[in-house]
Amino acid sequence: VWPAAPGTGRAADLSTASPGAPPELHAALVAALADLPRLLPGSGYVSAGLPELRAAVARRYTDRGLPTAPEEVVVTGGASQGIGLTLATLVRPGDRVLLEDPSWPLTMDAVRGLGARPVGLPVEDGWDPTALRSLVRRSRAAVAVLLPDAQNPTGRLLHGPARGQLAAALADAGCVTVVDETLADLDLRAELGDPAAVTPPPFGAVGRRGAVVHVGSASKTFWGGLRIGWVRAERSLVARLVAARTAQDFGGPPLEQLATVHLLDQVDAVVRRRRVESAGRCRVLHEALATHLPEWSVPLPEAGLSLWCRLPAPIAGAVAAQSRARGLPLPTGTRFGVDGGHLSRLRLAFAGPADQLEPAVARLAEAWRAALTGAGDQDDVADYRIV
Amino acid sequence: VWPAAPGTGRAADLSTASPGAPPELHAALVAALADLPRLLPGSGYVSAGLPELRAAVARRYTDRGLPTAPEEVVVTGGASQGIGLTLATLVRPGDRVLLEDPSWPLTMDAVRGLGARPVGLPVEDGWDPTALRSLVRRSRAAVAVLLPDAQNPTGRLLHGPARGQLAAALADAGCVTVVDETLADLDLRAELGDPAAVTPPPFGAVGRRGAVVHVGSASKTFWGGLRIGWVRAERSLVARLVAARTAQDFGGPPLEQLATVHLLDQVDAVVRRRRVESAGRCRVLHEALATHLPEWSVPLPEAGLSLWCRLPAPIAGAVAAQSRARGLPLPTGTRFGVDGGHLSRLRLAFAGPADQLEPAVARLAEAWRAALTGAGDQDDVADYRIV
Repeated sequence: VWPAAPGTGRAADLSTASPGAPPELHAALVAALADLPRLLPGSGYVSAGLPELRAAVARRYTDRGLPTAPEEVVVTGGASQGIGLTLATLVRPGDRVLLEDPSWPLTMDAVRGLGARPVGLPVEDGWDPTALRSLVRRSRAAVAVLLPDAQNPTGRLLHGPARGQLAAALADAGCVTVVDETLADLDLRAELGDPAAVTPPPFGAVGRRGAVVHVGSASKTFWGGLRIGWVRAERSLVARLVAARTAQDFGGPPLEQLATVHLLDQVDAVVRRRRVESAGRCRVLHEALATHLPEWSVPLPEAGLSLWCRLPAPIAGAVAAQSRARGLPLPTGTRFGVDGGHLSRLRLAFAGPADQLEPAVARLAEAWRAALTGAGDQDDVADYRIV
Repeated sequence: VWPAAPGTGRAADLSTASPGAPPELHAALVAALADLPRLLPGSGYVSAGLPELRAAVARRYTDRGLPTAPEEVVVTGGASQGIGLTLATLVRPGDRVLLEDPSWPLTMDAVRGLGARPVGLPVEDGWDPTALRSLVRRSRAAVAVLLPDAQNPTGRLLHGPARGQLAAALADAGCVTVVDETLADLDLRAELGDPAAVTPPPFGAVGRRGAVVHVGSASKTFWGGLRIGWVRAERSLVARLVAARTAQDFGGPPLEQLATVHLLDQVDAVVRRRRVESAGRCRVLHEALATHLPEWSVPLPEAGLSLWCRLPAPIAGAVAAQSRARGLPLPTGTRFGVDGGHLSRLRLAFAGPADQLEPAVARLAEAWRAALTGAGDQDDVADYRIV
């Protein structure tokens, strides 16, 4: 690890957009452990998810504006497994799958791993229903994966009339839409300057409904170490997903499922605090960048746990390599591109402790200056573990 | 559910070969919860597995006679995920994969799901190295999946000189051997009449070593609800498996991994009791079958958690259907066949409570008589959830 400069504190990890656990988590696990003994005489297998958790997740969708039955929910090992199982069930080799460009790299990997081809809808300036219609027509994509609630990495949130227009365009196109809601609780607009902002209902509740599959996660709202996610879909697809999950790993452990039931009982309070905490970290990171890297262009996000930075030169790969050499791993913007590109982009996560963000930016500024002068290794090494 | 006959108690599930948790499990989870706080400030992702658990699993292999480093272990969500990830990494569409016939159905499903073709090595009369050499030569199988420590469903254990001969045949053939050790702690020979029986070391420690990948599980020794398994392999394959697991689900929750470390500290005592308990249940089931179904031929197993029964007529499918209609689901022997067959076979698990085994057999005897007289539905409905 790069030695800290004099007066410089410990540097936050800017590559991982996953926060630590809220204080409620430990008590939820203690309560779950008290619930567990009734399950111990059995085999412990719950492929579809514990009925209590399926019901709690369904209740939350209903509360958010999308009436849902427990049988429309299957529990997964995080959203990643949910997206993977959904794509494996819906997509055949050779299919085109519409993805936002830029978007979440592991979803692109999953699409490619199935022998399908990602086609990218540019979203850096927001979602354009007309562009989407045209792209679906040209590509004949039958499935789209979107992040309308907190786009990763751009930090945009699809709200207002555009949300309904996009839903209509997808319904018209006959596209099955998989909505990745991993960061959906992290609408930061109210905390970052728009006190009137209201978080929209789930995408599938908007306007004319096409076939929408929602994939959610406990990882950003509660904790990644729960390894709890879920898919909300129509019952026939849920049945196929349960069979696919049984074949893959027989389901997850019941203990974290019981804990998540307890956490969902307090979700409004946890989300409120998570938003305040995240918006605070976002401001600290944003200000540190303005101080140390004033030549970078960094808009405040609407949602999520990261900033999508534009550098004044297409050398993000060199900056990432220099940063990694200083003990601060970073994925390059290129890793988020459907067909590469984004050479001037870096995604910086603000999920780490607030007091460690400025020291990380100070180190990043050194990496930037070293990359500008062409010093050191220019290899563009993408970090697999971006999350 | 079929009403219990007068004087008949609750019937055990004979389809699931997964026992309830031992008394040590709850304390291990309490201890794990005390270990957890140091992880809560982080993201909670541990794709390769917690270093403590990788070290504990490596220590157990070393203790069993196969020196192992922590870096040669990757933690998985049960053995199923371990086998799935290993096959996905080693097997290409069109490949032949050698499997024992009969053997574990979900492994066959995994092979077929990858577009590969299972080829069956008959093992009802034991493992024949000469037959294996010939089959590998004919089929050109590059990968074999074997259960030499507790064959499922036959209940055989490969011991004595034959174990080394089979290992040599596989090494000569250049086959990568994946050893499914799910039931490896359930050597019941000492408890079932051969007090001198000594459990052999892991397959990869025997004789001339070929490329052997060991896949283990906490599910039968400790509890299925931990969802903990592991793969022991050379470091380069471990690295590929970690990448594959990261892509699939980012790893499992840390809490059960911490609990499994505590359980492995007491593994000898738990295994000793598990063997005594399982052998006792085995005898109860065996005697109930001798009483209620004397016309069936049921050898005592050497290892595992089930009996492999031979019926005097090829109507196991009809018996399973009749049994299911009486609230007692059962997989047919055919489900364990690489190419179907085994029409006179049923696998009966003895993982349930001892006092519920005789009532289950009484019900099964009714199903047998109904099937013999041709009454009712003859549909052969295999139960997906055999475990």
